[in-house]
Amino acid sequence: MKTRFTERFQLKYPIACAPMALVSGGLLAGAVSRAGGLGLIGGGYGDTEWIAREHALAGDANVGGGLITWMVDKHPDVLDVALSHKPWVFMLSFGDPRPYSPKIKDSCAALFCQVQRLSQLELALEAGADVIVAQSSEAGGHGMNNRATITLIPEIADILAARAPNTLLLAAGGIADGRGLAAALVLGADGVLVGSRLWASRESLAHVASKEMAVRLTGDDTDRSIVFDILRGLTWPEGYSFRALKNTMTERWSGREEELLAVVEEERVKYQAALAAADYSIGHSTAGQAVGLIRDIPTAAEVLERMDRQAADVLLRMSNRT
Amino acid sequence: MKTRFTERFQLKYPIACAPMALVSGGLLAGAVSRAGGLGLIGGGYGDTEWIAREHALAGDANVGGGLITWMVDKHPDVLDVALSHKPWVFMLSFGDPRPYSPKIKDSCAALFCQVQRLSQLELALEAGADVIVAQSSEAGGHGMNNRATITLIPEIADILAARAPNTLLLAAGGIADGRGLAAALVLGADGVLVGSRLWASRESLAHVASKEMAVRLTGDDTDRSIVFDILRGLTWPEGYSFRALKNTMTERWSGREEELLAVVEEERVKYQAALAAADYSIGHSTAGQAVGLIRDIPTAAEVLERMDRQAADVLLRMSNRT
Ligand SMILES: Cc1cc2nc3c(=O)[nH]c(=O)nc-3n(C[C@H](O)[C@H](O)[C@H](O)COP(=O)(O)O)c2cc1C
Ligand SMILES: Cc1cc2nc3c(=O)[nH]c(=O)nc-3n(C[C@H](O)[C@H](O)[C@H](O)COP(=O)(O)O)c2cc1C
Repeated sequence: MKTRFTERFQLKYPIACAPMALVSGGLLAGAVSRAGGLGLIGGGYGDTEWIAREHALAGDANVGGGLITWMVDKHPDVLDVALSHKPWVFMLSFGDPRPYSPKIKDSCAALFCQVQRLSQLELALEAGADVIVAQSSEAGGHGMNNRATITLIPEIADILAARAPNTLLLAAGGIADGRGLAAALVLGADGVLVGSRLWASRESLAHVASKEMAVRLTGDDTDRSIVFDILRGLTWPEGYSFRALKNTMTERWSGREEELLAVVEEERVKYQAALAAADYSIGHSTAGQAVGLIRDIPTAAEVLERMDRQAADVLLRMSNRT
Repeated sequence: MKTRFTERFQLKYPIACAPMALVSGGLLAGAVSRAGGLGLIGGGYGDTEWIAREHALAGDANVGGGLITWMVDKHPDVLDVALSHKPWVFMLSFGDPRPYSPKIKDSCAALFCQVQRLSQLELALEAGADVIVAQSSEAGGHGMNNRATITLIPEIADILAARAPNTLLLAAGGIADGRGLAAALVLGADGVLVGSRLWASRESLAHVASKEMAVRLTGDDTDRSIVFDILRGLTWPEGYSFRALKNTMTERWSGREEELLAVVEEERVKYQAALAAADYSIGHSTAGQAVGLIRDIPTAAEVLERMDRQAADVLLRMSNRT
């Protein structure tokens, strides 16, 4: 598939690997970039040692980076460290990107801004984003409820066409195979940013037991709530929640967060012990609704190749029906 | 666009008009069917006089019907009345369709079953559904949260391909233009069931002030909750909620339903007065996330023609990029 995104970034596939915190390491990001996609290292909350190590592991692959914006607000120096590794592109999510745009542009990285709402799109355009990543509620990990890819992408595509025609658009959320990629492209995206499907690839740093659980579950089996944030002691800004695979923790506490807060110390002990024991019936597995389309744990290169081939097939097949 | 759905039902467009309660009357359903789509009269909660009148208004157009399944459980005779009008197809939503399938099939209507979850798909297949309508959370009106079109359609398409290859699949939720139609088709649907976009057509029975409000709003401006069900005194089964345009009622009460219950008598008076006065800053406007793609109030025929033409254009354009 050829799009403005593959042309602008000289890619073989219009597919970026999401900068998944502690999951998109150098191995995964490097594999994606070497295969012809765009790999981003998931700097997440800003562990500078982790970021340095993972950039080293990516070797000579042309990878990008990403950080959680509201965490940069608290520790602005982390951005300098992240940029010192010369990421090719840099993605900011979950906060106002405007204060950091000059520094990122000075470093020669292309600026990717992930948004969940039209109001956030304004800030990203003011920041001079080169690429808007429109993240929908079906996505794995942190995000917001109440917007879906099928409406968010065409709506943002129309705004960009009118106001910022050189700004590219990637769809993020629920895209795990070539049908999802093809759908994103016909909706008006220039490419996709894939999380969950690459989380369940060989090179990702997620635990294999967690990935194997994903293979068994369906798209009905995810939950969006702040249950795991409470257990981790993370206070995210208002409006954000976290999509993960359902398990005994979400079944018990999702929708009853006030009650969880009352017993959080005990529950946190259980949760941490479970994570240490790789018990994902209690610990969290970060994947989105796309989990229903995840049926194996291939290499990242295989994921990209399959997605691209299936997208091309389905588009050719459907265009013969017009 | 030609699909298995257009072939099976001899349609010009792979587009059905949702049986929107009290909105899809004979005028709208008739217009959709005459234009080459499939129009369904929205029997909703089962007002038999309304249903009779609207079937008469559809004239000689080949229209279908639909009812809310859990209401049929309470008043089974309504189904007999609805079927006496010889609907071409009949859609059941929101409940177990199995008890009613024999009667519908005996009437020679094709059975459409709308589902929101994979567990409901099982019941629909046992009922021998001819067409599965997969409704996602982004849809207007009643439905469930937590499943989006971009993952629900391919996941169900794979199950149908393996287990019921002659059962057709329609996507419902968030589809308002040709990009959404094209996306649904590449995701694996045989066609789409459109609600909100046709709610905002000339022939729909929704109030023009409500439609005009939709034209002004974006896809960020909808709410899924049970606020309006509480105000209407409707007790829906567990798990269902209602997506409508945000207004002062949803801003005040969504997420605070317990508190609303405490003052429901007063609030209901305000709500009913507002509806009588066509004041949609307080009364409900039933539309989904697709509202961000609704920018005018055309005829139903125009909606269908535009959707089909744009879908064909975008599919041809994208297939040239493979
Ligand atoms: C395991 C995991 C970790 C994630 N961590 C981050 C993160 O640190 N920063 C970020 O911007 N997005 C993060 N995301 C969200 C992704 O950027 C992206 O929006 C999402 O994965 C797309 O939806 P999908 O999971 O359905 O592909 C994460 C997603 C997953 C699955
Ligand atoms: C005004 C309105 C009324 C609706 N009433 C019904 C109904 O009575 N029965 C039903 O099965 N679905 C009903 N729905 C849901 C539709 O069947 C369909 O799933 C939905 O409209 C599709 O999403 P969309 O609104 O984004 O097109 C209604 C939807 C709207 C917008």
